[in-house]
Amino acid sequence: MARIPVPPQATDTMTVAQLDRRRRVLDAVIELVAQGRFDDVGMKEIGERSGVALGTIYRYFSSKDHVAAAALAAWAATLDPRPGGDGAPAAWADGGTMADRLVAILRRAVRAYQRQPAFARLLILAATSTDPFASECYREMGDRVYTTLGAALGELDPADRRRVLDVVGPVWYQALIEWVNDRKTIAQVYDAVEDAARLVLAGFEYHLRGKP
Amino acid sequence: MARIPVPPQATDTMTVAQLDRRRRVLDAVIELVAQGRFDDVGMKEIGERSGVALGTIYRYFSSKDHVAAAALAAWAATLDPRPGGDGAPAAWADGGTMADRLVAILRRAVRAYQRQPAFARLLILAATSTDPFASECYREMGDRVYTTLGAALGELDPADRRRVLDVVGPVWYQALIEWVNDRKTIAQVYDAVEDAARLVLAGFEYHLRGKP
Repeated sequence: MARIPVPPQATDTMTVAQLDRRRRVLDAVIELVAQGRFDDVGMKEIGERSGVALGTIYRYFSSKDHVAAAALAAWAATLDPRPGGDGAPAAWADGGTMADRLVAILRRAVRAYQRQPAFARLLILAATSTDPFASECYREMGDRVYTTLGAALGELDPADRRRVLDVVGPVWYQALIEWVNDRKTIAQVYDAVEDAARLVLAGFEYHLRGKP
Repeated sequence: MARIPVPPQATDTMTVAQLDRRRRVLDAVIELVAQGRFDDVGMKEIGERSGVALGTIYRYFSSKDHVAAAALAAWAATLDPRPGGDGAPAAWADGGTMADRLVAILRRAVRAYQRQPAFARLLILAATSTDPFASECYREMGDRVYTTLGAALGELDPADRRRVLDVVGPVWYQALIEWVNDRKTIAQVYDAVEDAARLVLAGFEYHLRGKP
């Protein structure tokens, strides 16, 4: 079947039935990724597994990279990175320093990828894809991650929150890549991320409390 | 000519004549990279341009990745990242805060890659190569970079210097990759690196001086 050379349909113009079909595609992809089989399958098999016609998939997604990035974002959205994980921010948001809270969220995010390393590989694919729609998914996912992590940094104004996360983010991403490529142990990933969070917040803690 | 399946000769076992031949190979590669032609040439052309026999090149380097990583390290070693660039540390090491000094060195490092973007691409190749000898070159280059940058952080003990650079390094590398891939402007690279250096040192400045 020929590729349709038009941008994929935006989700905010989709009907409930279309969103449901799109979701079935993403669920099939998430399952394939979790089984470590995503690299080996084509769009045709994704269509068969999801029960969605190939032409429809190509109306929703521009490429396999795009469907991969969208599936990663859907998977990441199901994670609740807050310690406790029960959706009750009060259980963690009040305890400890900003750094303690940020580290707690970051550790849970690392743990999610530790359990499902195939999604870490998908993260690299989404981050480096040349497909602009995959890049857009990746950016949107980043915005949501910043919002989640920013919740730990309530004492900072939004610009400073972003500055902190713009430092911690690359350390987290780089450490995860090195873990996927067997150049870091997962313990080193946890340490790198925690160290970055504590160092970068030390100045703010001094400023706020006179002591880190 | 068949590849010789043994590790390449270590430089510390090379004679002066061997080191000279190795250097000629690296000079030829640096020239090819600067001309943007490295991707398109094979080891044979590298041999022809350097006047070194192909069999000899393969005794010194395990692969094109290895020769690329070694050439990058040789190129980076010729940069003097200190403001003034005349090898006189006194001219910069005493001025401003630690952050000012670190930022000054980092900006010069960014500028070197800005002038020669092909080396930024080589950096990514060296960082991600699966050839262990290329990885070793990359690690050794990293150690030298840490020493150079660490000179700006004389007020910190060696462990803290490393902690700081372990945060700034990934930010620098990530920003450079995004610039090479047209996802960041060079101005954004300078800003990201400067912001990371200042944020991560703010706690230490407070600790040392009571104010950043």
